[in-house]
Amino acid sequence: MRRPTTTIAASALLAACTGGQTAQPAPRAGFDPAAYRIVDLTHAFDARTLYWPTSPTGFRLDTLAAGTTPGGWYYSANAFSAPEHGGTHLDAPIHFAAGHATADRVALERLVAPAVVIDVSAKAASDADYRLTRQDVLDFEARHGAIRAGTIVLLRTGWSARWPDRRRYLGDDTPNDASKLHFPSFGEDAARLLVGERKVGAIGADVASIDFGQSKDFVVHRVASAADVPGLENLTALDALPPTGATVIALPMKIAGGSGGPLRAIALVPR
Amino acid sequence: MRRPTTTIAASALLAACTGGQTAQPAPRAGFDPAAYRIVDLTHAFDARTLYWPTSPTGFRLDTLAAGTTPGGWYYSANAFSAPEHGGTHLDAPIHFAAGHATADRVALERLVAPAVVIDVSAKAASDADYRLTRQDVLDFEARHGAIRAGTIVLLRTGWSARWPDRRRYLGDDTPNDASKLHFPSFGEDAARLLVGERKVGAIGADVASIDFGQSKDFVVHRVASAADVPGLENLTALDALPPTGATVIALPMKIAGGSGGPLRAIALVPR
Repeated sequence: MRRPTTTIAASALLAACTGGQTAQPAPRAGFDPAAYRIVDLTHAFDARTLYWPTSPTGFRLDTLAAGTTPGGWYYSANAFSAPEHGGTHLDAPIHFAAGHATADRVALERLVAPAVVIDVSAKAASDADYRLTRQDVLDFEARHGAIRAGTIVLLRTGWSARWPDRRRYLGDDTPNDASKLHFPSFGEDAARLLVGERKVGAIGADVASIDFGQSKDFVVHRVASAADVPGLENLTALDALPPTGATVIALPMKIAGGSGGPLRAIALVPR
Repeated sequence: MRRPTTTIAASALLAACTGGQTAQPAPRAGFDPAAYRIVDLTHAFDARTLYWPTSPTGFRLDTLAAGTTPGGWYYSANAFSAPEHGGTHLDAPIHFAAGHATADRVALERLVAPAVVIDVSAKAASDADYRLTRQDVLDFEARHGAIRAGTIVLLRTGWSARWPDRRRYLGDDTPNDASKLHFPSFGEDAARLLVGERKVGAIGADVASIDFGQSKDFVVHRVASAADVPGLENLTALDALPPTGATVIALPMKIAGGSGGPLRAIALVPR
């Protein structure tokens, strides 16, 4: 089912050019999802889902029922458990900023917004510790236009192709030791530009953290959290998005008081 | 930030009425979320979240960290656990149909779609066992137009106002006994019309199940699951939606092999 997009803008244009002789204003219809390609930016949760080396556990699914019931029909159900910060997930501002928004209270306007995708995959391929610089952001803007307030800024490093190989994705697979991790991410100056000056809605990346693997001070988390900017981590399929023009919809599990949690993130890309 | 919606339809109209003298086609921009009011259709998960009476456990959140770190910054993180089927959640088709789609494989096109809201709250107020009838659906269509293929059909019973009062929401609070539940939902004939004839994308309701509380055969679940139609349960805020014109985005946690799971459902309503 695909129907033409009907908007106020269209009816206003038509009214203007016909001298207001249109019969009816266009109905205030919702947007038509069929006009967009839906891209899933989410890794599935299973026993291989990656968590931080110091995480006490990973994702677990326990079967509660699976099979034919006495009534003759099939029925299956499970229970699950996991830490909040693993797999494709949200960092709520309270993760690194006391008193700031919990997972259930992150403004939905920050999570449903136009997106830009900054591609540093070439630089990261030759430097696993690469951090997005302020100049990278300015160069992106010179080519694609200023990043507007409220935008969701996604960093594409190419690292999602390594998922779920712990050693290649995190840079090290020593149990309970996060000191030897190597993967690219945002740098401090770029984060300060995006958060402080551009007033972006959220930042996200196709790596395990919005700070790079060797970070000891988690400064990007702290800059973002202090400004109520949520982080979207372990995203995938960013190579399927254009630099501009996609709309991201990143909806976290609504955990009351949560510091983050499982995120289902998609993008709508105009066909 | 609010900017006018730019669409192909608008540029085509403009080109048509100016004899094709427009300078440039409109850019293929993503839709502008600022043109819509975002309504959260989701109950938060906490210790009061309702699960089925026979569920072994409920939602649980365990603090892993909360406080100032040796480095001087704040840090908090938690772990959580729950059965799949409680709170605002998805029923994947495999919940009642062997071999059908698991939670991670439900087509996103079924979960991002125009919605209609059928209001039976007046009837349910005087009959807690009310089931949506085929005639209710036909009456809705007579007033609001035919329900198109792919639509998400939401049933508004008014029951979400009773959440999370177990006795009032489920009709009974006897532990481990699901035989005395009373709440309204879809009826079999309405489900067969919506699923089999109208080919809707998904069905959802502001009650604990897409079958009514007294159901013993779960026929609506079976009809929907067999046709790969997912169910959206324990929704809220349906009274904030128009009968037609909203777009629902219902994104479940991506549990590999899951029979369902936590759902973050929102609606975009044109401003």
